[in-house]
Amino acid sequence: MCEASVYLLKDDKEELFLDSVDILEPQEGGKIYMRNLAGEQKTLTARIKRIRLVEHKIVLEKTGD
Amino acid sequence: MCEASVYLLKDDKEELFLDSVDILEPQEGGKIYMRNLAGEQKTLTARIKRIRLVEHKIVLEKTGD
Repeated sequence: MCEASVYLLKDDKEELFLDSVDILEPQEGGKIYMRNLAGEQKTLTARIKRIRLVEHKIVLEKTGD
Repeated sequence: MCEASVYLLKDDKEELFLDSVDILEPQEGGKIYMRNLAGEQKTLTARIKRIRLVEHKIVLEKTGD
């Protein structure tokens, strides 16, 4: 399967936020919605820093609380 | 491999923009940089509409020229 793990950049380190993510959608107000293969859903105020699909990695940076 | 095809949303239709994309990075000024497995690189002014990894699909919407 071609899911990816979503990491949050914190003090230049990548912390796992949600694994096996299938769907990711930027929304109004700078929020990003994501859902993984288990159906778990999370939304946070962040921006996408980089996506590396072959590494199954999406890195976000929080921009709000 | 877990690459994805990047599509551009145009008149509510998705047009293929770059296939086999591995790396995607939003940049300053609302630009998005991407590179595929063949080493082909493209940058355009756009925003990410949705990412569907299991479908190998990333949909962008142009926001400038």
